[in-house]
Amino acid sequence: MKKVNNTAGLKLFLSVVLLIAAAGCKKEGIKEDSTAKEKAPTAVSSGDHLPSWNDTKVKQDIIAYVKDVTNTESPNFIPVKDRIATFDNDGTLWAEQPFYFQLFFALDQVKALAPKHLEWKSKQPFKAVLENNMGELMKQGKAGLMQIVAVSHAGMSTDEFEASVGRWISTAKHPTKKKLYRELIYQPMLELVKYLQDNQFKVFIVSGGGIDFMRAWAEDVYGIPKDQIVGSTLQAKYDYNNGKPVITKLPALDFNDDKEGKPVAIEKYIGKKPVFSAGNSDGDLQMLQWAASNKYKNFELYVHHTDSIREWAYDRKSPVGTLDKGLDEGKAKNWAFADMKKDWKVIFPGN
Amino acid sequence: MKKVNNTAGLKLFLSVVLLIAAAGCKKEGIKEDSTAKEKAPTAVSSGDHLPSWNDTKVKQDIIAYVKDVTNTESPNFIPVKDRIATFDNDGTLWAEQPFYFQLFFALDQVKALAPKHLEWKSKQPFKAVLENNMGELMKQGKAGLMQIVAVSHAGMSTDEFEASVGRWISTAKHPTKKKLYRELIYQPMLELVKYLQDNQFKVFIVSGGGIDFMRAWAEDVYGIPKDQIVGSTLQAKYDYNNGKPVITKLPALDFNDDKEGKPVAIEKYIGKKPVFSAGNSDGDLQMLQWAASNKYKNFELYVHHTDSIREWAYDRKSPVGTLDKGLDEGKAKNWAFADMKKDWKVIFPGN
Repeated sequence: MKKVNNTAGLKLFLSVVLLIAAAGCKKEGIKEDSTAKEKAPTAVSSGDHLPSWNDTKVKQDIIAYVKDVTNTESPNFIPVKDRIATFDNDGTLWAEQPFYFQLFFALDQVKALAPKHLEWKSKQPFKAVLENNMGELMKQGKAGLMQIVAVSHAGMSTDEFEASVGRWISTAKHPTKKKLYRELIYQPMLELVKYLQDNQFKVFIVSGGGIDFMRAWAEDVYGIPKDQIVGSTLQAKYDYNNGKPVITKLPALDFNDDKEGKPVAIEKYIGKKPVFSAGNSDGDLQMLQWAASNKYKNFELYVHHTDSIREWAYDRKSPVGTLDKGLDEGKAKNWAFADMKKDWKVIFPGN
Repeated sequence: MKKVNNTAGLKLFLSVVLLIAAAGCKKEGIKEDSTAKEKAPTAVSSGDHLPSWNDTKVKQDIIAYVKDVTNTESPNFIPVKDRIATFDNDGTLWAEQPFYFQLFFALDQVKALAPKHLEWKSKQPFKAVLENNMGELMKQGKAGLMQIVAVSHAGMSTDEFEASVGRWISTAKHPTKKKLYRELIYQPMLELVKYLQDNQFKVFIVSGGGIDFMRAWAEDVYGIPKDQIVGSTLQAKYDYNNGKPVITKLPALDFNDDKEGKPVAIEKYIGKKPVFSAGNSDGDLQMLQWAASNKYKNFELYVHHTDSIREWAYDRKSPVGTLDKGLDEGKAKNWAFADMKKDWKVIFPGN
């Protein structure tokens, strides 16, 4: 076992908080009009597997690609066993503003646990969380965040953690969208996942988010099996526990599945390069580069957040989900960009 | 990235060598008659999915279990998405004597690379390998083994490593059985894997062996997709490499997938408890305990090496593949034991 006192354990959360701090909590570069309503959903037309996509170039390119590589007569045919697709999660399959939803979960857990810890009312970093004082929370730095992760994500069995996420995901609502977080998923991307699966692509999530945080709900919500969900991991230990074995989550990072970590995780968990990969930020750039180096014909897709009315508009200057280097490299390499405002008829399901 | 100088990196290989050393290279507790021939294969009878199994209790129990849990009318019915099966590899799907075949690969790599390293003729630990002097090799200890892993398993791209294993697996032969290593797989277990897959179980390998060593051949040989093969991992790093990205294997352990590591790896890679699990040694005991704690009806199987004529006979005292605690616990808990001598009509395919 690796040591438990790995202080790198909080990179993920810390980076979020530091980025928010850097932006002075002003959400610089992000546009949102939370009062806006979505258009009614469009009826699924017969034979259209991507009904929530406008009939623009990106949709046409996706369909042309899938038809080409699944056609046994095509020189670009890809055998079923090599049809690997990898999707980022935050900002690609569901929303991520004003910060990653997993951080809301962590803060909500602190609040839920507070009645059993009356001392938290006067003890940082918990005091800051209970008072919704993000400025003070940031001042608590790495050590403070470590304590928040420790109580919200570790020191419990994997079963207990799953139950904890399960309760949260079915009840917690987004502060400005006023919807359940699990409703803030992108209908066009759900259709894309299904369309690829129907064409015998094996679809994986490869996300910087916590692997068991996602697995607690994403199998049902996205239709992607748990073992095809890859993310950041905490260390864990097995205990026989007198015949009732448990695996306990430890407050130390095992793997940070972001940036250069994504191709490494793909190699570790999947063992094959993707032929189709989708992301939305610079954290996905290396994953898309990895897919782009596939010997098979491949497809790289960036979701571009351009819709300040229905979702949020942000890219180069956003503290969360920065798309800067990836915007330049993707344009230069002719990768596909799904412009949410222009290319998507609806954003969220069921409107 | 984690540090590269992780001296724990060689646990797997080291443990093999230490075990061999402990047994004084005398293969204590192992019986083999390498001159013996196998019986001719039995024709597949119609409707019999396990034709290489004798019609004994273990076969009947496997079939009764699968029929029960796949029957929608049964109280023990298991939904398809939860039909997870995990198989050990060394000693469970293929042979492992006189030591793990991956160690033969490592030693063969040293020999193959020797013409480019003339200095190895007089430099330990390579000298010992080139002279087939296992006694001397053991004296080189951890540092010596580190060098052998470094040249055979690391310091190269994942593509180069895969090609290297691919060449070896299609040509290298076992020293006493005189067959390709890839032919020393267990026909009855191949049938069992296929039978479970046909009943919509998702079958994974969960092995102490190297994950990319296995993936280089096991997808084709066993019919198990690469992403469903879990094993020990070395650390790795991504490099953009001027637009031709590579992942390089580093000479440091990332995860040792043995004993307590197996349930932890199952949680990390699969995220669900198995309902069916098969192993052959004490290294698999925790995996079987984990499966046995499943809320669904579950099945634990130990392959018991009892056939000194057709394969090898060993358990409690074998330096490789020790089955001691697991023998007691499995018997006490009524787990299934496949007695190779009594329960298997044939051992290896194509005889």
